[in-house]
This record gives sequence, structure tokens and C-alpha cells, in this order.
Amino acid sequence: MDLLVTNGIVLTMNKNMEIIENGAVLVHNNKIAGLGKKEDFFGHNANQVIDARGGIIMPGLINTHTHAAMTLFRGLADDMPLMTWLNEHIFPAESRLTQSQVYTGAMLACAEMILSGTTCFCDMYLFEDEVARAASDSGMRAVTGEVLYDFPSPSYGELKKGFEYVEKMIEKWKDHPLVTIAVEPHSTYICAPDLLKKASTLAEKHSIPLVIHVAETKNEKQIIMEKYKKSPVAFLKSLGVLGPNLVACHSVHLSEADIGLLKTNNVKVAHCPESNMKLASGVAPVPEMIRQGICVGIGTDGCASNNDLDLFLEMGTAAKLHKVFSRNPEVISAETAVKMATINGAAVLGLEKITGSLESGKNADIIVVDTSSPHMVPMYNPLSHLVYSATGNDVATVIINGKIIMHQRQILTMDLQKVIAAVNAVAREIQIRDSDQGFKIKDKAY
Amino acid sequence: MDLLVTNGIVLTMNKNMEIIENGAVLVHNNKIAGLGKKEDFFGHNANQVIDARGGIIMPGLINTHTHAAMTLFRGLADDMPLMTWLNEHIFPAESRLTQSQVYTGAMLACAEMILSGTTCFCDMYLFEDEVARAASDSGMRAVTGEVLYDFPSPSYGELKKGFEYVEKMIEKWKDHPLVTIAVEPHSTYICAPDLLKKASTLAEKHSIPLVIHVAETKNEKQIIMEKYKKSPVAFLKSLGVLGPNLVACHSVHLSEADIGLLKTNNVKVAHCPESNMKLASGVAPVPEMIRQGICVGIGTDGCASNNDLDLFLEMGTAAKLHKVFSRNPEVISAETAVKMATINGAAVLGLEKITGSLESGKNADIIVVDTSSPHMVPMYNPLSHLVYSATGNDVATVIINGKIIMHQRQILTMDLQKVIAAVNAVAREIQIRDSDQGFKIKDKAY
Repeated sequence: MDLLVTNGIVLTMNKNMEIIENGAVLVHNNKIAGLGKKEDFFGHNANQVIDARGGIIMPGLINTHTHAAMTLFRGLADDMPLMTWLNEHIFPAESRLTQSQVYTGAMLACAEMILSGTTCFCDMYLFEDEVARAASDSGMRAVTGEVLYDFPSPSYGELKKGFEYVEKMIEKWKDHPLVTIAVEPHSTYICAPDLLKKASTLAEKHSIPLVIHVAETKNEKQIIMEKYKKSPVAFLKSLGVLGPNLVACHSVHLSEADIGLLKTNNVKVAHCPESNMKLASGVAPVPEMIRQGICVGIGTDGCASNNDLDLFLEMGTAAKLHKVFSRNPEVISAETAVKMATINGAAVLGLEKITGSLESGKNADIIVVDTSSPHMVPMYNPLSHLVYSATGNDVATVIINGKIIMHQRQILTMDLQKVIAAVNAVAREIQIRDSDQGFKIKDKAY
Repeated sequence: MDLLVTNGIVLTMNKNMEIIENGAVLVHNNKIAGLGKKEDFFGHNANQVIDARGGIIMPGLINTHTHAAMTLFRGLADDMPLMTWLNEHIFPAESRLTQSQVYTGAMLACAEMILSGTTCFCDMYLFEDEVARAASDSGMRAVTGEVLYDFPSPSYGELKKGFEYVEKMIEKWKDHPLVTIAVEPHSTYICAPDLLKKASTLAEKHSIPLVIHVAETKNEKQIIMEKYKKSPVAFLKSLGVLGPNLVACHSVHLSEADIGLLKTNNVKVAHCPESNMKLASGVAPVPEMIRQGICVGIGTDGCASNNDLDLFLEMGTAAKLHKVFSRNPEVISAETAVKMATINGAAVLGLEKITGSLESGKNADIIVVDTSSPHMVPMYNPLSHLVYSATGNDVATVIINGKIIMHQRQILTMDLQKVIAAVNAVAREIQIRDSDQGFKIKDKAY
């Protein structure tokens, strides 16, 4: 089966950052079979042809850190301190979540991500097998991992069962073309050393990613400093957990020494600027990490703290936030931001051999960005537009693993209205319970 | 002529922040004639009915500071210091601009603003009469003013002619239903005291706004401190220029004393967070200004330093930026951000009696925000969604002064394809000249 995506600016995101004007990409089955000028493919008898209409043909975006099912809590509680948000709203709501609700929330997240050009995401949550199922059903590439911590989980119960749950997932999904399982201890502050070491050993045994929240808040750093007399990063180092398969999400409150440890151990970082801003967590030292050669991807975090899953907006925020925070307009250029959301994001998840750039032999994870709307006109530089002008809504087509998943803003892999209706039904229950806890929306309850 | 906008959540933005569920707004000619539950209007024989389909019916957004025609330079030069950007790219390009090019760029800006729910903007540029014409032709409300400074202008030539140009504009547009003229000296660093005082006198004479860039960069503040031994705000005070009709754009580098002066003189502020971030200018002390009761609106600035005119994104950025910068998640709530972009924006421009909220007797500047896309589901709180989840693309309908200007994403007042083609033709000339100056787009020239 041949699919030709043609008549666009092909942004390869390969090592030389090659851009092909009036270009085309040929897909054979699930792989990229060729790239070139569109004339090179005249007469090629493809089964399907997608006309990019002069838009940008580029790799699908990679969301290196999210909690997909938290779409269920989008806008439930904003503008409050992290601990109030977590303890009074999010944790109580999560304690009652069911398996099927997580699937429902994850399907909505997949819809939102597909519609905004994300082709691959890394997820951490409860009932994560349901998130893997949602990714598979919606046709998305995903790295999924059940969240592990040292208190009973609403999903698996006692920790011992948690590790069993993870091992079952690893076995169940091991040959799946889209889903990779990761081991995901929550953080240094709710996971004991023993849990962290076991998680690391399990990830190493299966050569899969180990994903953890690291130094997200100042408070977290203080807790770890008091308890272990070490920074979160140094503490992880002392446990032997730092390594090339570790995805350190957030990584906001880092010392110079911490950055050095991340670099020497080839740890990967998932940067979530909008969540860090909204929760007032802080600004991660991303320009310095990149300067030192650390591989940094972008993540949206859960959309209860964002409140969307649009990586185009996240690229723009990353580029602008670091400029003003460092008082230097040259840090995090448009090119750097796009790299973070594509090829570097793939490398963060250990998937750089199959996705993140348009190169022959790679899996075909491709999006087409329409450039005909007023806010994309004129176009002097496509990289600038992707970061500073586009939103996810400009994505016209999404292809994942060679399959057309979305075209002309229509998702082809799910009944979107059914998903939305199911989410709204769950939301009504959540809202009633949240109100029972004494929470009232400021102006009027909905 | 009656127009009924019905079947939505009516966000009035009135003093009590009233929200009407299952509500409707009745428009008679160009005014709001009534608000209520949709049942209240059953049987009312309106000439036109807009079904909001459960979405949000709210006041149109107000962009308190932009340079509309700079759409022509969108993405021409990014990721560089302000002075390189201005001197090597923007000023050379502007020096060759013609009257008709400004009209073309302003029409594209109007299209982009209408499509993203902005119904009123305050503009400063060259050949500003053309911007007023673009606003009038596209059906937008606008406050427009020719930029004045102490060197020859590509538009009017010598300064004396500049004041004549402004007086002519005031006379020409004085009875126009949509356009208000303002007096707009550029800034304290390229306007001498005499210019500033004359501009202030002229604005006062006609009771119209006086618009100026204030303390945008650290460098600007240093220049004024060295030259006049005063901060930009104190310098303006010494000239007698601070007053309730003054719109101080940016207002980033302010001392405690400066904030006090703005407050006691009832000066208005146009806050442009994305431009200030992208140019690494700094973070304006907006939470403190609001705490002291200063009226602050939101602006996008020109979209060569943003690079879009979407006030929904600007609201989200404002709310998130101040949270992280002040390390306090409670500052700039969703409600505050929406106020800045609506009723407070109207007050910044002296238009609070006619626009900025949905109240009987006010002019009908109304937008409908669709809430059916995945990123707007579920909805616990409409204010949260407007600030943290929506983009301008969610706007389904725009009504200005009682007239439907955009419906179902189609602009009814211009031939959009013709405007885009005209902009692209201008852009090709700009690009050739920019390249002649030795500028090359990083990866490949377009």
C-alpha cells in the first residue's frame, strides 16, 4: 500500500535540518519510502494521495509527558496553590476513578492530541492499561506506564500488585506496533528508595524507559533535601537510578551539580512550561541544559494544569518564556523549539530510530500543517510560523505508522461525539462530588 | 432590525459578573436591547437568529495595543535582540512602506482579529488613515492614531505635517460609528518634550486618547534616566502628560513610585505579555498595578513581535506568566484575565460606555465561542476555558455594532482570498529587500 503526501514544504527535521520546497513524502505500508521534490513522484501510482496544498509536511509532534485521562478534570480547579489543587480537588476526584472512566478520558485526550498534530505521547496514570488501549484504539503511538507510589493505589491496590500490573502490561503489549510500556514511579517524595530501585531494575531488565517527576516544585526539593540530605537528582544518583533510559519530567529546581549529573548520566528531560507556569512551580533551566547537550523534549503535562494538550502552543510558550526569563531573545530559537517537539522528543522516549523526523526507513508519523489562514500569512520562515503563529487547529492531516488517522479535521479512528458524550457524563458525577466537598466555582456553579 | 443571539451561556462581564445559563441577547439596530433566559425571547419575531449551540455568548475582545499593518512582517525576523530586529529588519522595511501596503496589511490584521473574536483594537502606525479605512471597511471598532516622532516619517514627512495629518484625521472621522482617532507620540526616547506636550494638548482639546509606549525596555528606561534624570513615567509627569486619557503601552520597567504616579493620575495601561516575552523586554508588574486599582487591558502588540493577534492566547499567557513570575498561582485569575480583555480593555480606551460588556443600551459587540471541540470538553467553568483552553479559532460568530461580521468562520465584510494574495505580493518585495540587506533565513531562504 503506497501513500503519497505531496505539494508541501517538507520539513525533514533530519540532522542537516533539510527542507524540501514543493516536496513530497512517499509512504509504503507503515514506513517512509522516499522524500523528494514533488516532480520526483509524478507518475508514481500511489493508492492514496494527500495534497498538502502548499502547507508544511513534517514529523508528528511528540508529547513527552502527560496524564491523558486528566482531560476529565480540565478546568475543575484553577488559580490556586498546588497543594490545595491536589488535596482538595484532584486527589479526591482520582480516588473514585474507575477503569472505564480512565479509558473515556484518555480517548478524549487522544482526540485532542490527534487534532493538534501530536502522533506520540508518554503517559503516566492510574489504570494505565486503559490508556494503552485508548492509544491503540485511536491509532496513536504511546509510551504508557502505571504510576507507582508507596500508598495504596485506586487502581492496583498494594504496591506489590502494582509491579505485577506493570509486568503484565509489559507482557501484554510487547509486540504491539504502537504501544511501548514504561516503568513509572511517581516521584522521589512519594516513592521510597526501595520502590525506586526496583522500578529501575525492572526498566533495565526489559530495556524500557523509566519515567519519574523530578524537582517539579521548590517544596519537593526541600522535602528531599531534609529527608536524604541530597537534591532529588543526587538522591536518584545515589540509588543508581540515573541513566540513559530515565525520563526526568519537569526538572525545574536543579543546581549546577544536578545539571552535571543529568548530563554525565545521559538522562533525558521532559520540559512542561505551561504547567510549570500555571501552577507557579518555576522555570526549568532549559537553555543551560541544552547548552550542556542534555536531550530535552516538550510535554503538556496533564490538562488539568495546562489546560490543553496542544504542543504548538507549548512550543511557543517554551520559546517565549525562556527568552524573557533569561532576558535573552536568542535562547530557544524557533528551530530549537521544533526540535524539542519532534526529533529530540523521540530521543527522550528512546524512539528516535522510528519516529521524530522524516527519513527513509523510519515509521511514517507525519502531519500536514495548513498555512492558508490569515494568521499564517505571509510566510517568510516555516519554523517561525510553527512556533510563533500556528496552533494545533492548523493541522490538516495526521498519519501515524503509515495510516491516515485524521484528515480535514475529521478523526477517522473513533466516534468523537460518542467520546464527548461519555466524558460529559463522567464530568457530571465529578462535579457533584467536587461540590459536595464544599468547592464552588467562583461566580456560578455549572 | 432585530437580531437574537440565543441558546448559550451569556457571560455579561457586567459589574456583578452575571452569567445567564441557557441565555440569549437581543440586539435592536446597533444596540443591545435585552438579555435573559432564552425562554424569555420565545415568540420574539427577530429578523435574524444566531444559535450559539450551547456555547459562550460574550462581549467581543478588545486589543488595547497593536500595530495592525505589521502582519506584513510576521516571522520576517525572530530570536534576536530588539535593536538588531528593529534596525536591521523592521525599520528598513518600514522606510519603504506605502499607503496602500499599510491598508493591505491592516486588512489582513482585521481578518485575523475578527476570526479570533476581537471586535475593537487600538492601533499605532504610519499612514494610519489607511488603518482607519481598513477598520471601517472590515466593520471593526478601532482607535487609530498616526505615530509621531522627532525625525521625518515615511508617511507625513516633517513633524509639523504629522500634527496636520492627525488633525485632518480627527476631522475626517469625527462622526464615524466605529472609528475614534487618538494622538500617538511614539515614546519618550524618540519624542522631545515639546512634541509630547503638544500631543497631550491636542488630545485634551478633543477629549480623545493619548497613546504612547512607556518603559518597554530596560534600555529605554536608562536612556531617559540619563537624559532627564527621571524615570519615563516621572518625566511624563513633569511634562503634565499623565492623565486619565493616557494609554501607557507596555509599562514594564516601573518603580514603586512610577506605579503610584500611574495610579494617582488615573493613567490606563496596555499590557502586552507575549511581545514582552518574545523580545525579552521583561515582565510588567501587572498584579501590583491591578492591586492598586490601575485599569489594565491586554494588547498583542504588532504581530512581528508576537507573532499573532489572538487575544485568547494572550489572556492565557498573561495569567500563566504572572503566576510563575510572582511564584503565586492565585494572581491573575481566569476572571481577571477575561476582564482585562473585555470591560477593562474598553475602559483603557475610554469606550466603556459603549462596549466591553453585554448590557442593555450598550453597542452590540458580541462574540459566540463554540465549546464543542475536544479541547473545550468537559466544561466546569466557562471563564477557565476562555483563558486556559480556548484559542481564537473557537470563535464561531462575531457581531460588531449590531452587524454580523463573521459567522461559521466566514468573514462577511471582505474578500479574504484577495487580501491574502495582496499581502503575499507585498511580502515578496519585502523579502527581496530584506535579503539584499544581507539577512538570510537560517536554514533556507523562502
